[in-house]
This record gives sequence, C-alpha cells and structure tokens, in this order.
Amino acid sequence: MGLMTKEQYLASLRDGRVLYWDGERIDDMTIHPNFRVPLEVALRDYEYDEPERRDVLTYKTEDGELAHRVYQIPTSEQELLDRMRLATELSIVGGVTGVFMALMSVRDEVAAVNPRYAENIESMYHLARDRDLRAAEVITDAKGDRSRRANDQDDPDLYVRIVERKSDGIVVRGAKFHITAAALVHEQVVMPTKSMRQGEEDYAVAFSIPTNAPGVKIINRSFAPPELNPFDYPASAHHSIPEGMVIFDDVFVPWERVFLAGETQLSGVFARSLGLWERTLGLLEAAERAEMMVGLAHLVTEHQGKERKPEVMEAISELICYAHVIRTALEAACRRYEKTPSGMVHPNILDVNVGKYFFAANYHVAVRNLQDIAGGLVLTLPKEADLRHPEAGVYIRKYLHAKAGVEVEERMRVLNLIRDLTADAYGGWHLVTSLQAGGGLIAQRIMMNRTYDMRRAVDKALAAAGVARPDA
Amino acid sequence: MGLMTKEQYLASLRDGRVLYWDGERIDDMTIHPNFRVPLEVALRDYEYDEPERRDVLTYKTEDGELAHRVYQIPTSEQELLDRMRLATELSIVGGVTGVFMALMSVRDEVAAVNPRYAENIESMYHLARDRDLRAAEVITDAKGDRSRRANDQDDPDLYVRIVERKSDGIVVRGAKFHITAAALVHEQVVMPTKSMRQGEEDYAVAFSIPTNAPGVKIINRSFAPPELNPFDYPASAHHSIPEGMVIFDDVFVPWERVFLAGETQLSGVFARSLGLWERTLGLLEAAERAEMMVGLAHLVTEHQGKERKPEVMEAISELICYAHVIRTALEAACRRYEKTPSGMVHPNILDVNVGKYFFAANYHVAVRNLQDIAGGLVLTLPKEADLRHPEAGVYIRKYLHAKAGVEVEERMRVLNLIRDLTADAYGGWHLVTSLQAGGGLIAQRIMMNRTYDMRRAVDKALAAAGVARPDA
Amino acid sequence: MGLMTKEQYLASLRDGRVLYWDGERIDDMTIHPNFRVPLEVALRDYEYDEPERRDVLTYKTEDGELAHRVYQIPTSEQELLDRMRLATELSIVGGVTGVFMALMSVRDEVAAVNPRYAENIESMYHLARDRDLRAAEVITDAKGDRSRRANDQDDPDLYVRIVERKSDGIVVRGAKFHITAAALVHEQVVMPTKSMRQGEEDYAVAFSIPTNAPGVKIINRSFAPPELNPFDYPASAHHSIPEGMVIFDDVFVPWERVFLAGETQLSGVFARSLGLWERTLGLLEAAERAEMMVGLAHLVTEHQGKERKPEVMEAISELICYAHVIRTALEAACRRYEKTPSGMVHPNILDVNVGKYFFAANYHVAVRNLQDIAGGLVLTLPKEADLRHPEAGVYIRKYLHAKAGVEVEERMRVLNLIRDLTADAYGGWHLVTSLQAGGGLIAQRIMMNRTYDMRRAVDKALAAAGVARPDA
Amino acid sequence: MGLMTKEQYLASLRDGRVLYWDGERIDDMTIHPNFRVPLEVALRDYEYDEPERRDVLTYKTEDGELAHRVYQIPTSEQELLDRMRLATELSIVGGVTGVFMALMSVRDEVAAVNPRYAENIESMYHLARDRDLRAAEVITDAKGDRSRRANDQDDPDLYVRIVERKSDGIVVRGAKFHITAAALVHEQVVMPTKSMRQGEEDYAVAFSIPTNAPGVKIINRSFAPPELNPFDYPASAHHSIPEGMVIFDDVFVPWERVFLAGETQLSGVFARSLGLWERTLGLLEAAERAEMMVGLAHLVTEHQGKERKPEVMEAISELICYAHVIRTALEAACRRYEKTPSGMVHPNILDVNVGKYFFAANYHVAVRNLQDIAGGLVLTLPKEADLRHPEAGVYIRKYLHAKAGVEVEERMRVLNLIRDLTADAYGGWHLVTSLQAGGGLIAQRIMMNRTYDMRRAVDKALAAAGVARPDA
Repeated sequence: MGLMTKEQYLASLRDGRVLYWDGERIDDMTIHPNFRVPLEVALRDYEYDEPERRDVLTYKTEDGELAHRVYQIPTSEQELLDRMRLATELSIVGGVTGVFMALMSVRDEVAAVNPRYAENIESMYHLARDRDLRAAEVITDAKGDRSRRANDQDDPDLYVRIVERKSDGIVVRGAKFHITAAALVHEQVVMPTKSMRQGEEDYAVAFSIPTNAPGVKIINRSFAPPELNPFDYPASAHHSIPEGMVIFDDVFVPWERVFLAGETQLSGVFARSLGLWERTLGLLEAAERAEMMVGLAHLVTEHQGKERKPEVMEAISELICYAHVIRTALEAACRRYEKTPSGMVHPNILDVNVGKYFFAANYHVAVRNLQDIAGGLVLTLPKEADLRHPEAGVYIRKYLHAKAGVEVEERMRVLNLIRDLTADAYGGWHLVTSLQAGGGLIAQRIMMNRTYDMRRAVDKALAAAGVARPDA
Repeated sequence: MGLMTKEQYLASLRDGRVLYWDGERIDDMTIHPNFRVPLEVALRDYEYDEPERRDVLTYKTEDGELAHRVYQIPTSEQELLDRMRLATELSIVGGVTGVFMALMSVRDEVAAVNPRYAENIESMYHLARDRDLRAAEVITDAKGDRSRRANDQDDPDLYVRIVERKSDGIVVRGAKFHITAAALVHEQVVMPTKSMRQGEEDYAVAFSIPTNAPGVKIINRSFAPPELNPFDYPASAHHSIPEGMVIFDDVFVPWERVFLAGETQLSGVFARSLGLWERTLGLLEAAERAEMMVGLAHLVTEHQGKERKPEVMEAISELICYAHVIRTALEAACRRYEKTPSGMVHPNILDVNVGKYFFAANYHVAVRNLQDIAGGLVLTLPKEADLRHPEAGVYIRKYLHAKAGVEVEERMRVLNLIRDLTADAYGGWHLVTSLQAGGGLIAQRIMMNRTYDMRRAVDKALAAAGVARPDA
Repeated sequence: MGLMTKEQYLASLRDGRVLYWDGERIDDMTIHPNFRVPLEVALRDYEYDEPERRDVLTYKTEDGELAHRVYQIPTSEQELLDRMRLATELSIVGGVTGVFMALMSVRDEVAAVNPRYAENIESMYHLARDRDLRAAEVITDAKGDRSRRANDQDDPDLYVRIVERKSDGIVVRGAKFHITAAALVHEQVVMPTKSMRQGEEDYAVAFSIPTNAPGVKIINRSFAPPELNPFDYPASAHHSIPEGMVIFDDVFVPWERVFLAGETQLSGVFARSLGLWERTLGLLEAAERAEMMVGLAHLVTEHQGKERKPEVMEAISELICYAHVIRTALEAACRRYEKTPSGMVHPNILDVNVGKYFFAANYHVAVRNLQDIAGGLVLTLPKEADLRHPEAGVYIRKYLHAKAGVEVEERMRVLNLIRDLTADAYGGWHLVTSLQAGGGLIAQRIMMNRTYDMRRAVDKALAAAGVARPDA
Repeated sequence: MGLMTKEQYLASLRDGRVLYWDGERIDDMTIHPNFRVPLEVALRDYEYDEPERRDVLTYKTEDGELAHRVYQIPTSEQELLDRMRLATELSIVGGVTGVFMALMSVRDEVAAVNPRYAENIESMYHLARDRDLRAAEVITDAKGDRSRRANDQDDPDLYVRIVERKSDGIVVRGAKFHITAAALVHEQVVMPTKSMRQGEEDYAVAFSIPTNAPGVKIINRSFAPPELNPFDYPASAHHSIPEGMVIFDDVFVPWERVFLAGETQLSGVFARSLGLWERTLGLLEAAERAEMMVGLAHLVTEHQGKERKPEVMEAISELICYAHVIRTALEAACRRYEKTPSGMVHPNILDVNVGKYFFAANYHVAVRNLQDIAGGLVLTLPKEADLRHPEAGVYIRKYLHAKAGVEVEERMRVLNLIRDLTADAYGGWHLVTSLQAGGGLIAQRIMMNRTYDMRRAVDKALAAAGVARPDA
C-alpha cells in the first residue's frame, strides 16, 4: 500500500499481461525497445524521490496517507485550478488515470439507481488510489455498422457486452478502440460508448478490471518508431505513447468491480462524465500547445527578421486570438465550476465544450497560419547528423545563418519543433486527436446545445421582438 | 447644477447649435421629426424620476451629490462589472459619454508630460459630471490620402489642426467623421486620430468644446428614415441615432479646455485609451447581440418545427460558441482588470481586444448562420398593415400558421427582428460597425500583438525545442 | 399575337388582378407609386423599338415570328452562352420567365409518365411565347411544421393541393411564398416544392394559371420604399421588385393547363429542374456582382491612396479569387452542357451547383472583405441633399477631398453603392437571397453529392490504397 | 544521344556527385538504401520498353528523334491538355524537369535584352532533351535576414552570387534550399529567387550546371525513413523523394551555360515563369489529390454505414466543392492559354494562380473535413504485422468487421491511406508544400492582383455607381 517506487511500478507491469505490437507478442514490456520511451513517460509520474516533485505529485488523503494527486477530489475553484496546474506536469499516463474523476462525478447519480454500483465505484477508487495504480479510459467500441444499434450488428460482439451473468460476476466480450496508454496501466476502466436503449441491456456495462485479467489482450500502435533523435524530433522523441486496441475475450469480472450491468438509463451518464473530464484535459493541452504555437510563430519569424511584415503580424495575431480564447475558456470553466450533491466540483460543462469545440474546429487553420509564416525549411532542414558532419556541417552553419544574435542551432531546433508538432507523424496525431479526442465535433455541439442557457437567450430575443408571451 | 430633468435636457439642446440633415438646416432639433426617435433614445438616460431607474442611473459623488453613473470611476472588479451592467441599460448617448473614462484613464500619463493638461481633464470631468452633460467621442479625421501623413496632404485641414495659438487659447480647423450622437450631446471631446510625429505638432491636439461653440457645425446622417413601424422594425424603430460629420471652422478653444496642443508623444495615448473603452462597450453590445441571435435562431427554427435537424443544430451550436466566447472575454476583461497609478481600473486590454477581434472577424459568418436557418420569410414577410387588412390578414394568419402553440404574430415579430437586425438598413449598419467601430480589425491585431505575453509563449516554445539560451 | 409594346404590357396588367401591398388593395397597379420602379424594371424587357435592344431581346421562332429571346430553347454551347449574355441584359421579370426553360427541360421525362402533361407544357410554352407573356416561378409552399409531411399538417392547405377534381379541370387551394415579381407577370407557373410520397397525391400538382384567375391573390412586399434617391441609392433606386405571397383560394385550373395532378413520382422532377435554371441565373448574377465588388474594392481604396497596403491587397485578392471561381464555374457549366433526349441543352448540373454553393457559402465573408477595407464612410456619408446644400455642401466637398484626380462625387457614389449593395436594405436582401434563392445550402449540397462522379473518385482512392476489388 | 535505358540512367548517376544524407557522405547512391525508393520513383520515367508507356512518355522531335515528352513544347490547347495528362503519369523527377518549359517561356523576353542568353537557353534545352537528362528547379536562396536585401546581408553569400567573372565563364557561390530531387537529376537549373535591383547585379544570375560539377554539393533530407511497409504506408512507401540543400562552393560555369549574369531587370522574369509552371503542376497534383480525398471520404464512411448522416454529407459536399473548383480552374487555365511571340503556349496565369491559391488557402480545412468523418482509427489502426500475426490477427479481423460486403483489408488500406496522406509524415509534407510550393500564399495573391482584369471590374462598378468619368 502507499506510493510505488519507479522500480515497483516497473515490476508491477511484469504481471503476465498479453501485449502485441508490430506483429510480436511482447512478454516483458519493461525491456522491450518499443516501450522504452513510453515507460520513460510513465515513470515521470512516479518521481516521488525529488522533494519538489513529491509536493507537486502527492497529497495527504483523509486517512493521512500520501497519495498521487491525480486522485485528489476537487471541492473548490482553487482545487480545480490546482488540478489544472498538476495536469501540466503529469504525463499522459497520469492524465488518463483521471478516469476516476469521471467515475466519482457520477457516483451520486448512480447511487440513486443502484447503491451497490456506487459503493463499487468508491471502493475501486480507494483501491486504485491506495495502491498508487494507473488506469485507462476504456470507452470506444468497435461499433461496426454505424447505421445500426449495438444489438443489431452482424456480430453481436461489436460493442462490448455481457455474455454471461453468474452469481459472482459477469463475463464480458468485445473490443475497445483507441485506448491511450492501455498497456501501461494497471486497471482498465470500461464504460459504454454511448446511451443504450431497451433491448440493449447487455451492452449497458461498466467495470474496472486488471490489465492482466485472463482474456484481456492489447494490440498496440504508436505514431512513432521506437527511437527518435531528440534534436530532430524535439517533441515526439519524448512523448510517444501507444494506443491500444483492448480485447475482452470472455473476461470474468467479479460483481464488486461492476459499475453497471443492464440499467440502460445510466449508460449515457458515464460517457458524458468521462467526456467532460477528457475534454477538460484536452482543453488544457490545447491551451498549452496553442501558446507554444504563438511562441514558435514569433521565434521563427524573428529569426528571419520578418516579424514586422503585415502578413506575418496578421498570422501571429490570429494565433494569439486562438490561444487566448482557449486559455480564457479553461479559466472560466474552473471559475464557474459545478458541484455534485456530495460536494465534488467539476469544470463548467458549457465552458469546457465551447473551449474544446473552438479549439478543435479551428486547429487546422491555426496550423496553417503557423506553417504559412514558417516557410519551407520546416520540411527540408538537414538533420542533426548532417549538422555534426565535418563537411556538411560547415555549409549548414554558413547558410542557415540569418542574422547576428540568432544561433543556428536554436533556429534549427525551432524549425524542427514546428515540423514535429505540425508537419510530421506527431503533428498528424495532433490534427486527428484535436478533432476526435473526447468525442468529435458533433458530440461537443450536442453538449453546447444541451447546456447553453437557451431560456435567457430566448427571453432577450422575445423582449427585443416586442413579444409578450401569455405564460411569461 | 446637479441632475437635469428631461425638460432641462431638451431645453439645453436649444442653444443655437448648427445642424444639417437631409439638406436642411435644422433650427430647433427638439421639434424636428428627424430627431424624434434619437431624442426618445437620449431621454432614457434622464429617467431619474422613476425610483428604480434612479438607482440604476445615479451614484453619490465624493461631494455627496447625485451624479449620473456614467461618470463613476471604477476602482475594483465589482465596480467594473457594475459599469457593464449599467451599460446594458444606457442609451448610446450615455454610452459615448463614457469618453470621460478614456480621458481619466490617461490623466496620470498626461500629467507626467504637462500637469496643466491633466488639471484640465479633471476639471472638464467635474464640470460635465456636475452639470449632467453628455459628450461625444470626436476622433476620426477626414484623413485624405492614406499614404501620406497629416502634414503632407493636399489640404492641410484634412486632419484637425491648430491654426492659431493665442494667449487665451487655440483656434482649430478641420472635420471629424463618424461621430455618433454628436448632435445630441453638450460637449465635443476631440482627440487625435492616431500617433503624430515630429513636424505634426499642430495635429497633436485634444480638447473639449461645447456643441454650440461658434464654428462648430454638424452634418447628420442616419441609417433609418424618421418613422418606422415598430412591428415591422422591432429594433431600428427604437434605436436610430444620427452619426455626425463635425466641422470645426476656426473654432476658438480656451486653454482651460485644452488637453493637448503640440506634444506629439502624447497623441497616440488618447486614441489608445479611447479605443479600449470604445471596444469594451462594443464587446458588451456584441455579447448582448450575439446572445439575442442565439435566441432568435432557436425561436425561428422551433416555430417551424425544425430545431432538431442536424444542420440547424450545427448552425445554432456555432452561434452558441460565438456568443459564449464573446461573453467570456468580457467577463475575463473585468476580472483581469488593470489599474492606473491613481487607482482607477480599466478592463484588461488583451481580453478586450481578443474579444472584440473575435466578434468582428466572425460576425458576418454568424449572420450567415442565422440567415441560413431562418429562411426566405425574413425578406418576404408581409407588413403589419397587411396583417391588419381585413382580407389580406386572413390569408396571412392562415398560411403563416406553422403548428399549434406558435402565435402567428410572435412568428412575424421574430422574423421581422431577424430581418431588422441582419438583413435591412440597421443590419447593414451592424455589419459595418462590427468591423469599423473602435478601430477596425488591423487596430485590434496591433493591440493583441502589443499586449500578449509573448515572453511566456516564447519560453514555452524554447523549452519544448530544447533550447537553453545563454541569457535565460 | 407577337411582341407587345410597352403600352400593351401596361394595359395587360389592368386585368382585375387582386393585389395587396402595405395594407392597401391596389386596383390599378400601373398608376400606383409602389409599382413605379418595379414597372420601370419590367418595361426594360419590352424595349423592342430601339434597334440594338431588339436584336438582343428577340429571335425568330420556327414559325418565322419574332419572339422574346427568353423563350429561345438552347441547343448548343453557344446558344447557352448567348442565353447567359442575354440574362445580363434582362430584368428580373424577364429572368423569372425562364421558368419555361425548366418546364421544357423536363418535358421528355414527363411525357414518359403522361403524354398529356407534356403536351400541355408545350402548348403553354407556345402560348406564352407567342403572346409575349411574362411568368413567375411559383414553387415554395407555406410548409407549416417542417417535421411533418405535406399531408400531416394542422391545416391541410399548408402545401398547395387539389381540393377537387372535375371533368374539365382541378380546383386548387394553398399559398406560395417568396414569389419574385408575381404581381408583374401574366402567368403563375406552379410546381410542387419538393418530392411527394404515396398519400400525398393531392400535393403533387403543377400548372400554369393567369394572374387574374378568380381566387388568385397576391400580397406584396419589397425591401425598398417607393421612392429612393438614385445618388444615395445607386442600385436599389433602380432595382426594387416586389416579392409576392401568392394565394390560391379555390382556383379552378382547366386540364389543358395542368402539368401534374397526382403522379407523386414526378413531383421532385419539376423542382430539381427549376432549381437548376434558378441557380444558373443566380450564378450569373453572382458572377456579375462579385466582379463589381472587386471593382468597388479597388476604387474605394484607390480613392484613399491605400490600395498598396498589404491588408488591402489581401482583401482584394480574396475578392478576386472569389469572383474568378464563380465566373469560371459559370463558363464551365455552359461548356460542359447536358442534353435532353429532344435536343435541348441545359447547363452542367454539377458545375452550377458547385458554383452556386461556393458563391453562397462564402458571400458573407466576401462582403466582410469589402466592408473591412471600405471604412466607416460607407455608413456615415452625408446624403446628396446635404452635398447640394449651399453651406453643408462646401464642407462636404472640402473634407471628402482625398487627393488630386479623385472627384468627390465619384467617391461618394462609390461609397453609396457599397452601402446600397452590402450594408443597407438592398444589401440585406442580397445576403439572404445569396443563401436562400434556388433552394438553400442544403439543397445545393444534396445536388453536388448526387451529381459528382463518385465512381471516378473512389477508383482513384482504391488504386492509391492498393485495393484490388474482386468486382472491379 | 537519344533515350536512356534505366541502366544508363543509373550509371549516369555514378558520376562523382557529392551527396550527404543523415550524416553520411554517399559515394554510390545507386546502391544506398536511402535512395532505393527515390530511384524506383525516378526510373518510372525511363520505362520506355513497355510499348504503351513509350507512347505516353515520348514524342518525336523536329529532328525526327524520340525524346521524353516532358520536353515537348505545347503550341495549342490540346497540347497543353496532353501535357497535363502526361504529368499525372510522370514521377516528381520528371515533373521538376519541366523547368525547361519555364526557360523556354521566357526565351523571347530574354532575347530582347541579350540574345546570347536566349541562345544558351535554347541550346541547353536541346542538349538536355537530346541526352534525355533530368533537371532540378534550383531557385530558393538561403535569404538570411528577410528585412534586408541580397547585397546587405551579414554574409554576402546568403543569396547565390557571382564571385568572379572570367573570360570563359563565371564563378558562383551560395546555397539553394528546398531543391526537390536535386540528387537524382543531371542538371541543376539555377535562377534568382526574386527581382533584384541596382547594386545587386552579382545576384542576378541564372545558369545550368551538371550535378557533378566541382563545388556542387547536395545535403539531402526526406520526410520518410528508407523503408516503409506499403500496406501501412500505401502512399509514402512509393513516393519518398529527397529535398536537397544545394551548395555552390565556387562553382565555375562556362558562358554557354549562363542565362543571366547581371541584368537585374530580367531577374524577376525567370522566377515568375518558373512560378507559373510550378503552380500549374501543383494545381494538377492538387486536383488529383482532392479527388482522391473525396473518394476516401466516401469509402471510409460507406465502410461504416454512415455515408447518409447529414454531417457526413456536409463534409463530403465541402470536399466535392473543393475538388471540383480546383479541377475546373486547371481546365480553364488550359482552355484560356496564353501565347509567347514564338508560338509556345502556357496556361492562363490568372486561372493558375486563382486555382492554386484556392487550393492552398483551403487545404487544411479540407484535411479537417476528411479527418472529422474518418474517425480515430486513422491513428490507432494496428499494423499489417499485427494483422498477419496468428493471435492478434484474429481479433483484428473480428473487430474491424463493419458490415457484410466490406473487406477488413480494404477498410484498413483506406484508413492507412488517409493517415498516410493527411496525418503522418507524408501528410505533414503535403500540408506545408500545399502552402509553400510555388511561392506561398503571398506570391499567389500578388499574381492575382497583377493579372486580374481590373479595368473591366472597375467599369462595372462605375457604371453601377452612376459615374461617368470624363476620360471614359
């Protein structure tokens, strides 16, 4: 019990979990080259030895024990802001472990339908927290034919479902897609991908299961090769994380780990809550990345002495507007927090969805603005190996000189970061995840429609139109 | 001294001011049909008799006197928010009187160069406040050829300038364009339209002068005819205000009314300060209007039973995102207020400019989204007179019926408001002022570039690029 | 028979037609002030006396008679191009008379279902042509609740329907909205607004009926007041045309004027054909207007000496791109014409829909680009009456001087035209009709999806993906 | 003389050229793994043995010899269209060899200044054609500080310049960036990157020089690693081509290979001509790629049974509009060709620039539309190796099944192609080259402004404004 050391974390991964990657079944992920960078990433959240990291990463629970802060349940605006600040320090593995915030946010609602599930949520939360575990957000089903419902597919397993109900638990079958960091965590926290209706009771299922449970198998995929030079790939050399296709091949889940098993009216509740927390994290990353893009736009044009050109100023202004709207939305979401009956606070749903939608709908244009002023060297810059070559390097240094005070290596690193972030495999990953993570533009539109204060807007319109409604 | 009654305000306008409109020189504006609606608008801010309006409209000054709240100098976030709330109640005539906020915001900066000017600002502020006057923001020059500076035009008067300096004051000549409500106020508060350079000393001039001062002449223009049916024109029938071309034909300004007379380094300071307060008001109006557009979008589609169509939901979502970003920017501008040395607070410059720019750059698309779902009846709806006609009215009521619960008159009023706001003369006025008021997209881009925390963005970019700058 | 004189046209309108406008029943439209400008517009197409107009406006029919060219059925690319050139000369009254092209385009298709209808189309075409009539495109129904079908509304008359079938004809009831120039034409050519299904046979009805037929009543609406100064309103002073709400109050239609009466499978055919011809005309007007906007952008900035500023050049470039894409689409639509079995050619459907969609989806942004560089004078320019006033006019001439070689009156006319076209009542009319005329963005999207060569695109994708389909 | 065989081409590359790549100096590129794919690409254009390829790839010259069609000078619309068709078959190495079209297009203009240069252009054209050589477009200079001119940089070599003029030729020094396929061609055709002014005579230099000339060195860079699985990377596995930084380290160029050496008035002429031909090729590739994107959008949504969802139809419609505008612009550019005095035709400059600008300015949004409907599998799809793995492959086939008739492997290939084209390294390369190739958005804006028929647009505006200009 209590915090794990890095060594304990690594040891905990050698638990027999079934992993595939690049056509290989990986027996010990801790020594496999594909997992070298992902594990470096994951280990950042176990850096409890350095005193200042320990302060950032831990808090004292109600039991007086130290626990990872990702488990701290916010109860005020300040704690919500603290959580945002923590999130900028966390790796993506710590980030997805925030799935427990989504569970705890819906606990009261779940309790109203079935108190047993609510207890299970709470006890899983305590178990995971007290053992310092990491967990994945396991939500998106295979889905098959989108024009048909879960219970009407060619193969009934295209959405994860209960195939057997037993006295001591349920047996589930199916697959979940796009599960970030699935191979790196201890618990797979599974939820329905969307609302289910009558007749789809077997698909209304939520639970948490250890990664090494019999029948759980993960097929991994990353945007990056195992080894990337950090000069040439300043971002992705450090950030590669596998996405997992998580298979449930008749996995037994004991009742005490089940959060939902048939109550269709609750199935949408989990997805909406997870959506909120996922989009909040997405919005935070968006704010950070957009600000970095402003900085890159400034640097890459300043390096070339063209930062005063009107078309450059326009592009930078557009990026500033973009970044500032996102940042302001995030701050507003914390300031205008919402509270569950048991006192947990979560970010304002409308603010988060507006911010995330704005970010996602305009991200490709923001990338265009940056690439437009950055120029072709983003693509054609020679690599570090050429820079270090005794002959080629001389030419590179001579011809990449732009003006006094601009170091060639700084210039190259900035160009490399722009390429890495926007015009290479990692950049492509960002383009797609900006749109798809947390549910796609459609999902955010629906949430905006649902949570906007339409009454107030309608009243303004009616007053201005000179309409006195008899009922008003 | 003290608050004026409505009658006193009207009487104060019969002061010999020189006004032209539609080819006519108007001797008594208080009985001229062109001014009927504008005066109704202006009089709303003198409704001190109704107790609840009095509370909204007045405050107690440091002298213990009641004064109009537009003169209250904010010193905290709450007072700034109160001012925003006041502004939603104020007419545009009260709105432009906020020009004194711009003057008082720069008083400390002006005092550092010439204490006399700062004293004049302060005494004019007290004079205007204590007499309950209204004032106009008199800033945009004729400008002539934009590729040449003020002192290099075919006619030296194309920017307002000092033509003579005397012991007791200055004589000015020139014209100012687009002066909202100029004919309806007591004081013309004049400022340079932009920064001036060496050699342009005569153009670095700011002052306040009564509207009836000899040589002041105003040529008026409004988007609306004098008389509009409020059923057919629910917005513009009540909101028409003339814009004035204000001529200064060798107007004498005594020194105690002069705020600048030659110190070119200060000339940009006034324009920037006024720009901030103008854009703040513009942002507030933008938030109100955008929210009304959301409400109209909801109503007009609900009336037709099509509010659940995906393309309708998309358009409404886009409008929600648009309105919410604007509202959030305004609130952030108040929360992150900035303070002058003497303790006056003003809205955050970056927040205001980002919000205003976002509003302006996307307004035409917001209008498109509303018009796209509103349909052709916005244009082709018969008028109230036809609705009231015994024969035609029967058909109109029959065929504009959409579904139970939707009153035909409500439906017509909503359609009329959409047309009036977006697709008629008043709508065109909004399209252009959304872009041009407070200085155009370019001006806002420059302010965003100038006030964004570029250091912080650059540091994030450098850290991510792996650059360690020797100086950092 | 044969061409009408202007006098004959005016006389033909004194036929007892029932017209309402502004709450008045108008007995003789030819002397009513509301119709003064509309009739000026309509009469342009009867200018057969001037020899060069006669050449433009007429052609020799297969009977050797002169007829109006709007009736000429194109059979080659050149004749299609000629028709486009004619259309730039035609008034909107002549423009809508092109409804006969839509009818004749579907004649073969109609004949396959019911030869009698095809004969009626042909004979109505000859009758209208040989009497030099004008006709309106009478298509959009009242529609009521959009979530319900025609036969499922609160009031069965919310779509025009057959209320009685008799031996000699049918009786119809209902209303049609947005009927451009309805009051100015001789024939109301009525079609179903959309596809009808089984059970909606009474709504599958198309026919042509004289405007003065018993039971036909028209409620008129225009964007413009009867009288506008052509200096201040250079466009709308000459272009105002009423839109009509056309009522069918149990109108008897003899069988020989019926084109459809119950065959639901044909109901969409008329609407699609009319849509094509309407959008073609819309595309032509779009090309003309977009080019005019480029010219205005150039003039208004050149007048101010700012046409070389980068932000101005960018806005003008965007307008050039906009205008040129539209013009090119129109030309391509003629070049890649399509042919009916009987040899009539019509513009390429995909080209027209792509061009019209591109125009409509981006029109508001084009307006923004023009307004952004045109400045505030678009709104605040004094009127001609002030310019001609002996005192005010002197100031206006002095301060609107920009630089040598730019006439103040030219500058004012250009600013007035920009306002009139984009920021006044007529401008609002353009904003909405750009979106709604010819069926709205959705309708154009559907047509693009339907007519694009998807097979070719899919084959390219499959080849590039390395897929060899067994069936390919 | 005459056509080369593939073997001769490979042998011709073993000519001592100096190449660097990934920190290595490569002695024999024909056996180096980095060049395996690029050479496969280049060899496609030497497939003269297959009879049908020979017909596509060759033509008979005026000497009666067979030559590669890339050298055929178009003299009619049909030959221009043929050239476009050829270009869809050509590799990028053949594509850039089109640089000779740019040279030949300006020959007449060059001859007017210096006939010797024109003769050199012609003889180099014949030499290259008759030896079946390939050539690179060597244009973009290092540029250093963009706010200073070529002759005002910290290092005078930041633009390629003449360092010595000798009786038999010139000596040049400098570097050229972003030179596509530089290492794979025989001739480096060098031009000034922009207009030069008085004082910059040494920078007004154009010539052609063999790749193995002493002092020429090429540092290579590609977006792709040497080896990519064609199932996982359907596009980039076959299309990787190095971009070269081409160094001129005091390279001697004999006079007969010089096209410009000091006549600054001609320096912009080459760049503009090359720009036209580059953009034409870019426009063609744009049309092909955009059409493929439409096909991919259709396939990826049809596979999931969601092609009828309104938001999907909207995205596909937008892509159709995008693709069709581009294709139409290309066809118009050929139809409205322009002719040089000596009878060579080239595509219409305005059409090409409008098409290219439209493509570039909207490409990122087109990518967004495709990614939005394609979903997360674009990123997280397992690789072919996992599909072929006996355990993992079973799950992949089971859970990627969508509906009857959709092969899992087809589905995977389509997803992989979308990722490869838009969301991976190759996709990033497309994002940047869409903007930067052929000169950037600014360059295209300038060309649109310069070539649009502004007189015609202004005349329309003046006529509509009611202006009669005295000079008109």
